[in-house]
Amino acid sequence: MNIIDIINKTKRSEALSDEEIKWLVAGFTDGNIPDHQMSAWLMAVCFNGLTERETFSLTMAMRDSGDVLDLSGFGKITVDKHSTGGVGDKTSLIIGPAAAACGVAVPKMSGRGLGHTGGTIDKLESIPGYRTDLSFDEFSDIVRKTGFSIISQTGKICPADKKIYSLRNVTGTVDSIPLICASIMSKKLAMNADCILLDVKYGSGAFMKTKEEAQVLASLMEKIGRYAGKKCRAMITDMNDPLGSNIGNALEVAEAVEILQGRKKGVLYELCMDITANMLELAGKGSLSECRTMAEEAVSSGKALDILRRTIELQGGDGRICDDISLLPKARFSHEIRASHDIKILSVNSSEIGMASLILGAGRLSAGDSVDMSAGIVMNCHAGDMVSEGDVLMTLYSSVCSDFSEAAVRAYRAVSFCSI
Amino acid sequence: MNIIDIINKTKRSEALSDEEIKWLVAGFTDGNIPDHQMSAWLMAVCFNGLTERETFSLTMAMRDSGDVLDLSGFGKITVDKHSTGGVGDKTSLIIGPAAAACGVAVPKMSGRGLGHTGGTIDKLESIPGYRTDLSFDEFSDIVRKTGFSIISQTGKICPADKKIYSLRNVTGTVDSIPLICASIMSKKLAMNADCILLDVKYGSGAFMKTKEEAQVLASLMEKIGRYAGKKCRAMITDMNDPLGSNIGNALEVAEAVEILQGRKKGVLYELCMDITANMLELAGKGSLSECRTMAEEAVSSGKALDILRRTIELQGGDGRICDDISLLPKARFSHEIRASHDIKILSVNSSEIGMASLILGAGRLSAGDSVDMSAGIVMNCHAGDMVSEGDVLMTLYSSVCSDFSEAAVRAYRAVSFCSI
Repeated sequence: MNIIDIINKTKRSEALSDEEIKWLVAGFTDGNIPDHQMSAWLMAVCFNGLTERETFSLTMAMRDSGDVLDLSGFGKITVDKHSTGGVGDKTSLIIGPAAAACGVAVPKMSGRGLGHTGGTIDKLESIPGYRTDLSFDEFSDIVRKTGFSIISQTGKICPADKKIYSLRNVTGTVDSIPLICASIMSKKLAMNADCILLDVKYGSGAFMKTKEEAQVLASLMEKIGRYAGKKCRAMITDMNDPLGSNIGNALEVAEAVEILQGRKKGVLYELCMDITANMLELAGKGSLSECRTMAEEAVSSGKALDILRRTIELQGGDGRICDDISLLPKARFSHEIRASHDIKILSVNSSEIGMASLILGAGRLSAGDSVDMSAGIVMNCHAGDMVSEGDVLMTLYSSVCSDFSEAAVRAYRAVSFCSI
Repeated sequence: MNIIDIINKTKRSEALSDEEIKWLVAGFTDGNIPDHQMSAWLMAVCFNGLTERETFSLTMAMRDSGDVLDLSGFGKITVDKHSTGGVGDKTSLIIGPAAAACGVAVPKMSGRGLGHTGGTIDKLESIPGYRTDLSFDEFSDIVRKTGFSIISQTGKICPADKKIYSLRNVTGTVDSIPLICASIMSKKLAMNADCILLDVKYGSGAFMKTKEEAQVLASLMEKIGRYAGKKCRAMITDMNDPLGSNIGNALEVAEAVEILQGRKKGVLYELCMDITANMLELAGKGSLSECRTMAEEAVSSGKALDILRRTIELQGGDGRICDDISLLPKARFSHEIRASHDIKILSVNSSEIGMASLILGAGRLSAGDSVDMSAGIVMNCHAGDMVSEGDVLMTLYSSVCSDFSEAAVRAYRAVSFCSI
């Protein structure tokens, strides 16, 4: 086999064989195929796509580049959930404990944030003492005890994906549905849970800008998951507005706790209950409506919050944050943005809010940048709201940045409104 | 400016500005833009092409990456000729002296061969003593004396092209008309002759497989040359059959000498006279038919051969080869292929003949391979010929390879015929 032949085949829309794809992924991962040839192939894929068969082969070859976990020892059905990412998305911290409270195991590995979307691992690290770098044995032990744990992804899972993604990120080859699918599904299949629930987001704050694109990706990922022998379902959810009120690491943990305390309802709560219900139904726990009731009871009974508290404690963190969110890191500086006249909110651009939050210190522009756990934004307004002159639209928080001018301008511009 | 934005623009078919293209070429040439980002951009160009304006900017940026020669000191109109390459193409050795004999200056830089097409520099180096690595001053001096010289291309001419071409060669991004155009024209414009005659070949032995493709490339190159202020014309010529009878370095020099001796006519002679006439007409030496007559007289009078002899001698070579081709390197081994019955030749596949010649030692598979100057093939048959049983179809020559079986099978298969 020859890399130039492989590039040319994809360039001419001729399907590659399973063997060719295996050879390509293995060769790139071990350094025999250099970056400049891989990036040419990736660009050809951006233009010509891949067949379902090729996407499946690519996903499996990437999965097999590292460890495939054995989750069979929990004595429970295991359910994994993946969200394609967005601004203010703290669903994992809610649905994990809620689903675990209903009798399934939710062993999750997650990543750090880059750019305007936050990473679940960063959010969890805002909890004083919380360790995300556990061994697989420690991780398994916690899942066995509470039904739920989240740790950071290890290098042993899908090294091929890590290397390919780094290259895509700097060569304009991110926006390819088969490549996105293979990247997500290779990691999910290496994680190896029995059931996989995918939350594919679309809108201004998501990678897929339209519902139609999200549907194509969702349908492809479901097929790949099923070809690999998993129970797999994809939900398609709106990510035009930020999810919930809080954006930023500690602020999002606080909001997740408020949801699990049963003190906060609304869009975020509804979405989390939907996701949990789908996870449970996929795991055979009953009909979708039965599962929805179970999910709501897991929250209202306080069971889900108990699981989160125990998991935090087992991972070395301060479980008291589940009862007192003021124990989470607090920002030194804050800045309120108020309405200058009576207005109606038309929309809130999530990615702009995410960028404002990043400027405040809540995110990173480059891998390795440090993050201000206390920084972020609390939105007091959502699309459709009426806001009176002088009311607070949002509050910006930061411990590293006392000059709020740049972030405030960006955050204010993210809100579209009309005078009333 | 940002390389990822540039890749994305080309990917979305948005035209790049002159400044963006300059920045891209300069950045890649000086190593600030790495190979993997350049190859992604090149692949996007293969899919989306470039506008004429972008192709012109790219050509000029590549030209300006190195020296632009000053050919104003010859006191004559300078004419450069470029052929897109083929099997058995020794036209430069004929048209250079012929045009010089008619009063124009033909200062040429040429390259080495790679794959199944030979390079003019390799051919010239088969002349005992001939030096191709002259300084610009030595080169100018010879052009001033004889009107004609060919030396090898220096690194100072278009380093950007050299670097981009090396990358295209290993990333499946060779077959893009704007990239081919920019590669050729940047070198021609750096050479900086007043007039540029382009010989764009199509057919089995050429890079452009169809006449239509060749026309697109020819028309684009003419425009780019004219935008750059040159008199520029492109001829489109058939390269389905090998050009002339001889393929291989010393064998091609011998055939060029035979043409200039006036001893050989046919397709090669006619093409050379056409090219020379077009070069002269472009240089304002008269009408095309007047120029054709001048070209023929340059050969029949022996003036063109005199110029070749003097140029060879000034470059350190043995000029006596112009009177006695047996002084050229001769192969130790030869092998005749004869017709097994009475046949009519339908076609001769040039690229297959080129490959057979390469196997005999006449070419290189990788840059840096050594070349057998004596190796090659002499064709006794051409498309349309009737050949009787037992007659020689072709003779293979080599000094490095005494087992002719592989080359003979390949060469024989290159000939399509029917029984008569």
